[in-house]
Amino acid sequence: MTERVYNFAPGPAVLPEPVLAQAQCDLMALPDVGASILEISHRSQAFREIIEAAEANLRNLLAIPDHYAVLFLQGGSRLQFSMIPMNLLTPEQPSADYLISGSWGKHAYKEAKKFGPMQRAWDGGDSSYRQLPEDADLQRNPEAAYFHFTSNETIQGVQFATEPEVGEVPLVCDASSDFLHRPLPIERYGLIYACAQKNAGPAGVTLVIVRKDLLARSRDNLPIYLNYNAQAEAGSLMNTAPTFAIYIVRLVTAWLLHEIGGLECMHQRNRAKAQMLYEVIDHSGDFYQGHARPQDRSLMNVVFRLPTEELTQKFVAQAQERGMTSLAGHRSVGGIRASIYNAMPPAGVEALRDFMLKFQDKNS
Amino acid sequence: MTERVYNFAPGPAVLPEPVLAQAQCDLMALPDVGASILEISHRSQAFREIIEAAEANLRNLLAIPDHYAVLFLQGGSRLQFSMIPMNLLTPEQPSADYLISGSWGKHAYKEAKKFGPMQRAWDGGDSSYRQLPEDADLQRNPEAAYFHFTSNETIQGVQFATEPEVGEVPLVCDASSDFLHRPLPIERYGLIYACAQKNAGPAGVTLVIVRKDLLARSRDNLPIYLNYNAQAEAGSLMNTAPTFAIYIVRLVTAWLLHEIGGLECMHQRNRAKAQMLYEVIDHSGDFYQGHARPQDRSLMNVVFRLPTEELTQKFVAQAQERGMTSLAGHRSVGGIRASIYNAMPPAGVEALRDFMLKFQDKNS
Repeated sequence: MTERVYNFAPGPAVLPEPVLAQAQCDLMALPDVGASILEISHRSQAFREIIEAAEANLRNLLAIPDHYAVLFLQGGSRLQFSMIPMNLLTPEQPSADYLISGSWGKHAYKEAKKFGPMQRAWDGGDSSYRQLPEDADLQRNPEAAYFHFTSNETIQGVQFATEPEVGEVPLVCDASSDFLHRPLPIERYGLIYACAQKNAGPAGVTLVIVRKDLLARSRDNLPIYLNYNAQAEAGSLMNTAPTFAIYIVRLVTAWLLHEIGGLECMHQRNRAKAQMLYEVIDHSGDFYQGHARPQDRSLMNVVFRLPTEELTQKFVAQAQERGMTSLAGHRSVGGIRASIYNAMPPAGVEALRDFMLKFQDKNS
Repeated sequence: MTERVYNFAPGPAVLPEPVLAQAQCDLMALPDVGASILEISHRSQAFREIIEAAEANLRNLLAIPDHYAVLFLQGGSRLQFSMIPMNLLTPEQPSADYLISGSWGKHAYKEAKKFGPMQRAWDGGDSSYRQLPEDADLQRNPEAAYFHFTSNETIQGVQFATEPEVGEVPLVCDASSDFLHRPLPIERYGLIYACAQKNAGPAGVTLVIVRKDLLARSRDNLPIYLNYNAQAEAGSLMNTAPTFAIYIVRLVTAWLLHEIGGLECMHQRNRAKAQMLYEVIDHSGDFYQGHARPQDRSLMNVVFRLPTEELTQKFVAQAQERGMTSLAGHRSVGGIRASIYNAMPPAGVEALRDFMLKFQDKNS
């Protein structure tokens, strides 16, 4: 079987087929270069054009102003969990606020505590991370070096539809699992980061958008690779960048711009896709039970449970037979997780919806 | 032009054509998976088989014993320059020895000094890094936490044919630009690291082979991604690994094993390739002047000068017209650098040799 399935994996995740087709076509040799993207220098003219186009596409899609730098780094969000406190804490502001709305926020907070006295501005752990706070629920420190939140929690399937209000404190966002799924008011953020392997590209590159005034906080004695200011000064080419991953980001962002029509269109398509599944859940008479509180539901990861573990396993197995893969929920939450990022075609979601309806018919 | 050139780039560098062909063939969907290698989870069975095969191939090629861990990390050698002192220095052994035989050794030393009082065991800067030391030349500290050297200096084209003798102190080697070019006596090393983009794969993954007893030195308060012990415990899957880059490493190592016949055969082929070019240099009556002292010459990067800057530029331009690219030397050394890593076919080196002979005929 080399036919393509509908891949509901939480990340690395499905990519747009035209992107894969283009990458495949040029894999032996880029046109007019005579060598593969896998073989060319990060300092070659051909690669400079690629990284510049990737950045220009991102600036275009998100209307990123000039006073923000765009970085292409390695190490995933996990390395950002460390880099953020290492770069943004200062002797005058040694503490930051963390809003913990799921597993990833908890990981970020745990790592940050190595570098200073962090404060939990809110923690949804008591409710199994089914819901998000109102601004009034946040315990904010106005002297915090920054305020960190996770815009979409992949495991629990909760997502902020808008940014929390944090006053003058720089807002730092782990947008790993919903980056580029909608337009963003960039100027509300101090720093946004996202590993690419959900909506922006393959594993191996992490995008960081940072307000340039914050770069002054990076101290010279940081490990050189982890220094945002040094990375910005080098244009992400301090050392060999992950050239192939950046090339795919260029192709994905071009697809968003030219085939989808930008992030407003993408957002509309994402809302329609998610609605198809949540409607089935809401009309299932509790056969399917959504994990997240309805107003906090994610457009990216639809997390729900079936009445029994046996039915859950049957659901996953029968879906797999029908070419719908990677639907098992995360072990910490159980049930089903359908990840329906930007590149999941509406037809894939329709196929899942139809299967859910039939499965309930036969098994309830 | 989508015809392939002979690409003499210093890295990212040429890859074996059968590897590219295989990756191209399977790019839309891995056989029996139905999704691209770019789309599958790092925790999927399909990817586990890939990373396990990559590690098994490396263990097979280099005869790596069980008491060494093999890690697949991100961030390039630049991040290793920091991770090594962060992990291997201890309160009892706060200093390490650095042998500086070229530009990369100098970078590694400069970065390590952020973390403790490093000592230069030898520095070839006075001779423009044309030569390597004898063991007797080294100023070694028997209490050093480790002894760091660079097996091949890409920019200057000097290479150790055997390991320096450092007694009981763990030997740490930056093998970024000659990894897998010959068999290695692994047990002489405490730690070997190599970014993949010369001999082992594409940019985006860095291989670390480390003696397991050294992992006990990693302290819990290190940034989690930078902790060798944590990475080893997680089998390099603490977070999303650079899946595609590791997949290419698997293909390259399989090529070395099954098409080349192992590292003894590879070494023999590499010696023959380098000899073709050094013979032209040595018989050119100083028209071509090698940078490195003959006994310290690299098999990977052949660095030489022409009589004038004008001739150098003419050489690069005419070679380019003949489909031989990326031959300009590094700006700090000038002249010509022909990088002839494992995947450069003998035919490519023959083409360059023939061109060098003709160019001298016409221009001397």
